[in-house]
Amino acid sequence: MKHFETSLRVRYAETDAMGIVHHSRYFVWLELARVEWLKACGLDYKTMESQGFFLPVVQADLSYQSPAFFDDFLRVVLTPPEHIQRVRFTLTYELFREGTLLAKGFTVHVFLNQERKLIKPPAFFLETLQKA
Amino acid sequence: MKHFETSLRVRYAETDAMGIVHHSRYFVWLELARVEWLKACGLDYKTMESQGFFLPVVQADLSYQSPAFFDDFLRVVLTPPEHIQRVRFTLTYELFREGTLLAKGFTVHVFLNQERKLIKPPAFFLETLQKA
Amino acid sequence: MKHFETSLRVRYAETDAMGIVHHSRYFVWLELARVEWLKACGLDYKTMESQGFFLPVVQADLSYQSPAFFDDFLRVVLTPPEHIQRVRFTLTYELFREGTLLAKGFTVHVFLNQERKLIKPPAFFLETLQKA
Amino acid sequence: MKHFETSLRVRYAETDAMGIVHHSRYFVWLELARVEWLKACGLDYKTMESQGFFLPVVQADLSYQSPAFFDDFLRVVLTPPEHIQRVRFTLTYELFREGTLLAKGFTVHVFLNQERKLIKPPAFFLETLQKA
Repeated sequence: MKHFETSLRVRYAETDAMGIVHHSRYFVWLELARVEWLKACGLDYKTMESQGFFLPVVQADLSYQSPAFFDDFLRVVLTPPEHIQRVRFTLTYELFREGTLLAKGFTVHVFLNQERKLIKPPAFFLETLQKA
Repeated sequence: MKHFETSLRVRYAETDAMGIVHHSRYFVWLELARVEWLKACGLDYKTMESQGFFLPVVQADLSYQSPAFFDDFLRVVLTPPEHIQRVRFTLTYELFREGTLLAKGFTVHVFLNQERKLIKPPAFFLETLQKA
Repeated sequence: MKHFETSLRVRYAETDAMGIVHHSRYFVWLELARVEWLKACGLDYKTMESQGFFLPVVQADLSYQSPAFFDDFLRVVLTPPEHIQRVRFTLTYELFREGTLLAKGFTVHVFLNQERKLIKPPAFFLETLQKA
Repeated sequence: MKHFETSLRVRYAETDAMGIVHHSRYFVWLELARVEWLKACGLDYKTMESQGFFLPVVQADLSYQSPAFFDDFLRVVLTPPEHIQRVRFTLTYELFREGTLLAKGFTVHVFLNQERKLIKPPAFFLETLQKA
């Protein structure tokens, strides 16, 4: 999968007194896109956690180019890494309202086990991504 | 303890596009007041959870009389129940900016154990409240 | 319209350390249901605000019967009032995961104008609701 | 001012099902630190907005080194730029629980006027920062 796309509608509670979406809320949308992307690859994050595989965010970065407003219909385009060769891997994101790029950025992730210790990305994850 | 009072300053991220605090955020402040009230009674909610005592909200109700704004300095006055005689107990709250009542309401709670099964309020809780 | 139904998927960011959805987040879902219900009636809340009609929440109440979890697919059933005869009106809600009722409650609303002064529900609103 | 420090206590509603603070909430704490830093410099952000000076976030970046938990008492250390010579300026942050660095990152800001058009940082802002 070169790119994965999901969409969402901006909630009123995501706006702030500037009349636009608060910058912190975008990270919730990136997470939503990750979960849907995993599903599209055949992986269920809820099941993964119940089996002791956690995917926390170790870095998050976004550049905001144009504001998002209440009730906007937005597309999040997630680009997975071409290869995962190490413990950390990076997902990149672009956020659009129709043709307008609103924001772009990335999140970096690692795998933790049930004891919340760092582990290498598990084989099932690497294989699923390669097939997808 | 007849009443317990705590204070907070409104965060920008708690406002919405109407220029006021979003109604859902007030419930986070009530929770904050509960945690501080428990501490004032000598109970640490974090420790309680680690020992298998959970205090979820089973009902939440607020009436909003006047809006709260960014950077407001607010007081939350929590009133505990006089007696806890059953499984459920109710805490009431009033929220003020200086002398102005902004909102009032209540939350109803039960105790759950480690398996998230309903239990009676534990003795240590009832005794601590009685002493407080 | 006797009932209006919308659906949503629970986001990870809506959960808390108890492993369930934080009680304050449900109010965001009720709001989402209101906005979609208005659309189904032919009213766009964003346009309403731009024309100086605001619909704040003056009371919010929810009873939680069973927890919601990450990635749950939920239905919110909104029931509008049969008649609006006064300044305040009440919407009721039931939240389901498949056949299980998770929560039920209500929100009370008033109309404010551009200067945030209380007004009677405008004619266009009452007529639209009656037709719907 | 070389560094500005503020503190906060982690709220239950800021945690997620992983049992730790959700990564998106940290950006709310950085904002809280910015507002307090401005106050320490003699600037009131609420007044600034009412006078038509808005300070949106145009980039936000955080690296998470160790999780924050419910009820943690945290310190946010904000470092302002030494000189502001252009339209954009960067604030850096470090977040600590006692001696442990939990996260570090930065936010980039611009000034917008009442019409939300990009303007140069106003003289009062630059002078106040220089004095601080």
